[in-house]
Amino acid sequence: MDAQIKQVSIIGVGLIGGSLAAALMRNAFCEKIIGVGRNEASLQKAKKLAYIHDYALDYASGVADADMIVIATPITAISEVLRQIKSQLKKTVTITDVGSVKGLVVDVARYRLADSFANFVPGHPIAGTEKSGVSAAFAELFDHHQVILTPLPETRNQCIDQVRRLWQCCRANVIEMEVEHHDAVLAATSHLPHVLAYTLVDTLAKMDDKGEIFDFAAGGFKDFTRIASSDPSLWKDISLANKSKIIPMINNYVIALGKIKQALEENDEAYLQECYTGAKTARDKLIKDQYE
Amino acid sequence: MDAQIKQVSIIGVGLIGGSLAAALMRNAFCEKIIGVGRNEASLQKAKKLAYIHDYALDYASGVADADMIVIATPITAISEVLRQIKSQLKKTVTITDVGSVKGLVVDVARYRLADSFANFVPGHPIAGTEKSGVSAAFAELFDHHQVILTPLPETRNQCIDQVRRLWQCCRANVIEMEVEHHDAVLAATSHLPHVLAYTLVDTLAKMDDKGEIFDFAAGGFKDFTRIASSDPSLWKDISLANKSKIIPMINNYVIALGKIKQALEENDEAYLQECYTGAKTARDKLIKDQYE
Repeated sequence: MDAQIKQVSIIGVGLIGGSLAAALMRNAFCEKIIGVGRNEASLQKAKKLAYIHDYALDYASGVADADMIVIATPITAISEVLRQIKSQLKKTVTITDVGSVKGLVVDVARYRLADSFANFVPGHPIAGTEKSGVSAAFAELFDHHQVILTPLPETRNQCIDQVRRLWQCCRANVIEMEVEHHDAVLAATSHLPHVLAYTLVDTLAKMDDKGEIFDFAAGGFKDFTRIASSDPSLWKDISLANKSKIIPMINNYVIALGKIKQALEENDEAYLQECYTGAKTARDKLIKDQYE
Repeated sequence: MDAQIKQVSIIGVGLIGGSLAAALMRNAFCEKIIGVGRNEASLQKAKKLAYIHDYALDYASGVADADMIVIATPITAISEVLRQIKSQLKKTVTITDVGSVKGLVVDVARYRLADSFANFVPGHPIAGTEKSGVSAAFAELFDHHQVILTPLPETRNQCIDQVRRLWQCCRANVIEMEVEHHDAVLAATSHLPHVLAYTLVDTLAKMDDKGEIFDFAAGGFKDFTRIASSDPSLWKDISLANKSKIIPMINNYVIALGKIKQALEENDEAYLQECYTGAKTARDKLIKDQYE
């Protein structure tokens, strides 16, 4: 049990919020875990699964006694959530979120929280699956995964420490990074790949008037496109929220594809070999590093 | 045991050739399975694993007694293999291959085999992993996978039937398709995704001067880029062999990415939602169809 934190309120008990609740419950992080949201069926399910002790359907009662509030809603809902909870906050509360884009969230939080902004620790667990909802949640989701915190100069150290302990309790590795850098790195390894996968599957589906192409998809295609089964609304919002980082990466990527196309046209075997080998080397290293 | 086929010679005992040998051996397809190739260590390994009964290092003795010859080398080696075996063939032999691009293989086979071309059944098992070599082979690789045959009007029916039985013995589903159509479908579901994955990982690796981006890659990225760990030489050759189909698909893809970029710039939520939803729907259907 954490000495400073008796109650954690988790707003939005879906895949991430539900998995967080389950992990905190399993590891007895605090006395009371409250789920907060609009979808009562989903909160009842979380309670039945013993991920949360209880739930609240209105933000005011849901966060009033909270020592820590975790906002695990889609990023587009964060502004409204903060607006509604602002007047209910304990002075010593710690607030954090799980959004995939930190620049936008920080802007919104600074505006909505005003003088309480120093209590807000922007966070992002690098974990998830293509599924969504509390039924897809599981306590091990964050095991050995990275959680990136992007505190600002004014963020209270005590709040940072508490959020760090929260995620360490879920067996995650917590690191800190600047907001801008986070958004650039995630654009590269997560947001751009989602855009590419969605675009590929949608393009093929539109070409495929006989519904036949996908019959011949092997394991490689299924893995390549797994992220295209992710929640479209969520990823529409993430794409837009981080578009200032994603658009230049699309531009770079189109240039790189143009070079491959030229190499194909000119039978430039050396260029193709170099590009493919560079990719294999980097990808094999990534797998090796993460499993050793 | 197949009544017509006593000996199958497999030229190239790597992931595909080795898995085929293992499956045929497990299911007692014929009396004798001979591995043929240049790499003695690899053939010794295949023999030790009991995937083949024996092996030959020269094509002439390797195929002289064969009732069926399976060419499982990289596609660029097929021309030279056919040149060397041409004078050694039994009149009733059946020849097939496993190449990912059928147009080029058919052209090469027609030229090299001349009057024996009617004995050649172009084939392509839609199976594989990102690994290569006989160590990565396993007898179940083709279980419930598709094998596409692209026979020509002059191809002998008896040869087609034999190749069909060969793959059915490996528990694969055998279907027939025209050469052109095969190459278009595979460009969409296999060749283009490989090009996209290689290009992404290589582009990110070059951007990443601190070697840091990949530290924050989660499961989605690892799956998305798994095919970028495939053999670069093999895929350079496949890319070039099917470039007439791949290049127009790269063009379509770049146009589609351009539309996404424009939607991001203009905050066109409806377009993004439609594209991402179209992709998710098609991808979820593919998974559902293949597992039901």
